[in-house]
Amino acid sequence: MNMQPQLLAGAWQAPREPAGHYRAENPATGEAIGPAFPLCGAADVEAALAAATEAATALADTPPARIADFLDAYAQAIDNDAETLVALAHAETALPAETRLAKVELPRTTRQLRLAAQAVREFAWTSPTIDTAAGLRSHFAPLGKPVAVFGPNNFPLAFNAVAGSDFASAIAARNPVIAKAHPSHPATCERLAQLAHRAILDTGLPAATLQLLYGYDRTLGLRMAGDARLGALGFTGSRAGGMALKTAADAAGVPAYLEMSSINPVFLLPGALAERGAALAEEFFASCTAGSGQFCTNPGLVIVPDDASGDTFVADALARFEAAAPGVLFSRGVMDGLQEAVDALQGAGATCLVGGHSAGPGYRFQPTLLQVNARDFIERSDELQREAFGPVSLLVRVSGETETLALIAQLEGNLTGTVYSAADGRDDATLARVCHALRPRVGRLIANRMPTGVAVSAAMNHGGPWPSTGHPGFTAVGMPSAIRRFAALHCYDHLADALLPPELRDRNPGGVARLVDGQWRSDDVSASA
Amino acid sequence: MNMQPQLLAGAWQAPREPAGHYRAENPATGEAIGPAFPLCGAADVEAALAAATEAATALADTPPARIADFLDAYAQAIDNDAETLVALAHAETALPAETRLAKVELPRTTRQLRLAAQAVREFAWTSPTIDTAAGLRSHFAPLGKPVAVFGPNNFPLAFNAVAGSDFASAIAARNPVIAKAHPSHPATCERLAQLAHRAILDTGLPAATLQLLYGYDRTLGLRMAGDARLGALGFTGSRAGGMALKTAADAAGVPAYLEMSSINPVFLLPGALAERGAALAEEFFASCTAGSGQFCTNPGLVIVPDDASGDTFVADALARFEAAAPGVLFSRGVMDGLQEAVDALQGAGATCLVGGHSAGPGYRFQPTLLQVNARDFIERSDELQREAFGPVSLLVRVSGETETLALIAQLEGNLTGTVYSAADGRDDATLARVCHALRPRVGRLIANRMPTGVAVSAAMNHGGPWPSTGHPGFTAVGMPSAIRRFAALHCYDHLADALLPPELRDRNPGGVARLVDGQWRSDDVSASA
Repeated sequence: MNMQPQLLAGAWQAPREPAGHYRAENPATGEAIGPAFPLCGAADVEAALAAATEAATALADTPPARIADFLDAYAQAIDNDAETLVALAHAETALPAETRLAKVELPRTTRQLRLAAQAVREFAWTSPTIDTAAGLRSHFAPLGKPVAVFGPNNFPLAFNAVAGSDFASAIAARNPVIAKAHPSHPATCERLAQLAHRAILDTGLPAATLQLLYGYDRTLGLRMAGDARLGALGFTGSRAGGMALKTAADAAGVPAYLEMSSINPVFLLPGALAERGAALAEEFFASCTAGSGQFCTNPGLVIVPDDASGDTFVADALARFEAAAPGVLFSRGVMDGLQEAVDALQGAGATCLVGGHSAGPGYRFQPTLLQVNARDFIERSDELQREAFGPVSLLVRVSGETETLALIAQLEGNLTGTVYSAADGRDDATLARVCHALRPRVGRLIANRMPTGVAVSAAMNHGGPWPSTGHPGFTAVGMPSAIRRFAALHCYDHLADALLPPELRDRNPGGVARLVDGQWRSDDVSASA
Repeated sequence: MNMQPQLLAGAWQAPREPAGHYRAENPATGEAIGPAFPLCGAADVEAALAAATEAATALADTPPARIADFLDAYAQAIDNDAETLVALAHAETALPAETRLAKVELPRTTRQLRLAAQAVREFAWTSPTIDTAAGLRSHFAPLGKPVAVFGPNNFPLAFNAVAGSDFASAIAARNPVIAKAHPSHPATCERLAQLAHRAILDTGLPAATLQLLYGYDRTLGLRMAGDARLGALGFTGSRAGGMALKTAADAAGVPAYLEMSSINPVFLLPGALAERGAALAEEFFASCTAGSGQFCTNPGLVIVPDDASGDTFVADALARFEAAAPGVLFSRGVMDGLQEAVDALQGAGATCLVGGHSAGPGYRFQPTLLQVNARDFIERSDELQREAFGPVSLLVRVSGETETLALIAQLEGNLTGTVYSAADGRDDATLARVCHALRPRVGRLIANRMPTGVAVSAAMNHGGPWPSTGHPGFTAVGMPSAIRRFAALHCYDHLADALLPPELRDRNPGGVARLVDGQWRSDDVSASA
């Protein structure tokens, strides 16, 4: 059978002993589209690890400027190929071509690559630190080992394993990437990898800087994640998938950066509802149904006062959800998983106000609102804070601040927590207490805007406490911070100046910001310590 | 039976259902000394976690200045109590009272606490980051959960679970500590904890900021490490112990910072030996036998040219080891473990040149040199790079640079790697290639000095690649860097200025160094974003 080649050991190669194959589907119709893509075999995993291990040493030795040149060249190639990429991604994901893919996600992807290039040129991710008296110099440096990236279904470009934040971060830190395509958009992955591979060769990086496999069976995926030759693992996806990979990686001492499930609680304080309830209903509806709700930061839990203005808000939101067409999901798997989650939430005591079921053609789901009272939520919080990945939100009706705080006390770690309050200050006392209680439970605390916007910024945290991610100290989005996930701390103790990496030498012709004897400065160090 | 009280839930309490007890021993004689200390029961673990969880919230809300005041007050209390502490630590560990404990380790301990206080006052560990255009502000913040610290045997003061780097780091980040005393120096732990507890109460920190348990049986230790209420775990000790705790912590999503075994390879290049072989033999002997070799950074593997100057070095070193008295180890366990390791190294093909056996009275071991040729080392590197914790080093005789590089390729991750080269430059070409090969395998790359000195510096890395530690991106020593292990990344998205932590507000009266729109600066931000 004819299958697409894999990008392995520096070249596009026909699979030798594939464990199987699959085709993409148009999720709007359920029809198979495009060519057959291979599931890799054990020999491919071994070949990828061997080639990446060799490339890791070469890449660590590559001048940072060349890495930056690659990131910029790749960004430009994506821009140049935008029409084709958008068409492929649209066909495979049914995400709106213009409003989402062309105007938002593709520019986000190239901007992210360019910000990574900038962080590389400025050595911003390396935190050069010099103690002249002690003769010590340290910085963050490449792992010297490859990074395995498992991309998610929900951003075929901006979180793609061959173009997204994990990719850009791992490469910026000069580590090769072994990428796993998401099976819901393999042709998009292939096209991006073709562009990346060409840019890799053009800029003179090691040919195996990027490798692409289209899928693993479970055993091989865990074998890859648990191989001690890996320097780290980046994963975005479901909790079950992340936990399995983490267990394998942990046993091999491989740091696993996981972005798993999150329900992103949104608190609508009474004053905010009284002031602008209708506007909030619209804002919430738009956020919950954009991309058919398939966002890590989807507002999956909305805490609404159990009073008249809360009733009005719910009625408003309900009307919008009722009038909405079913949203197209990425795959049958997402649809089935969502149905299972919605059924489980109802089984745990939530009432379905609207939607609650899948629809055809293809893989669609009716935008869905569920409701439960706070007492029941608190009592069965384990079951009721289950993520429903899609255009679904659970409204929790709450009576007063005390109950709100009791609810917060039951929340697991989340990527985000949001509080809407009145502009006139009437909610301020409650606002302060709700923020205080939410703070340790979320990575990003948001005021008066929905959580679905995730700016690519040095001050972003797209991360959060367990189990939303695997480590509360790292972000998956934002340069240079996201790069640090894929870095090792390197210290030099009395090494001769000539043996130091350029950014740690006495002379600092590039004006790199360095922490010298406790002060951030960008000048030379006067004498070799 | 009368047992010492535990520091639990804010007070010194008699153990209720202890699982057992033990007494310290004078390792120089093997005699039991001091009172009986309890092994805690299941109820104590639960009580400690409950109290620490409550304290965590209160501590996160404590003004940083008060934390700094505590760290300074505790440092002063240790200074004031130096005579008693040194006497206790000397009795329990047999470490030299004056030269090591009073003159080196105690001042290091108090300096470390004071540097942590300074980092707290300067917000140096928090990396305040502001993106005015995006309305985002982030920094590192308390975990909001307690940190369990498992201290090692080898630094009764500077790495003590109630006074050392893990303790200072966790507290500086405003997290409570549940400390486990090391059973080889419980009375030292008790005395330190008394001083810490008094300083906690005096400075108005939550009473359960520090709790102290004297020991767990294996099941309870793993239960503690695997409790999801923990924010993190700090461990310094053996690989077997660290791995067991890590497995438990990993399953609960608790980041585990482990500083495990390391053999710290030292490369003596031919020119260095020709130039100053006798001096190097003395330096090596002193480093390998100081503290009876019980250092994480002990030079446990020395790569010596297989030529005449190498022979002279080995003969020189041998003479010094032969003339040395047996070193006192910390416990029977250390002595038995060391004998096992030395026997295993011989079983794997190493020849014992001197020593190789324990001695009495108490727990002593003859300073030991083993030797093997590089070919055998490379062939059985798994067995031959086993740590022998004590005054023991394995000399590897190597022929030329190619074999040296082949040997390096077999090395596991280590805390340090050291290269000695000639001052006149004749080794420089080899030096560069050896450094290059060693770099990704060690945390700290050292030139021309033994690895046993670990300065408390912002530029230190007392960490390294797996399996020397559990994560290559963090250091266990050095302020403010070590503090980051116990921090969560917190982002604020369009929060009102008044709801931000002081160091993220527009006004910056303390002149905190902040990364504002990509530049490190210490002035105000002009307008709330």
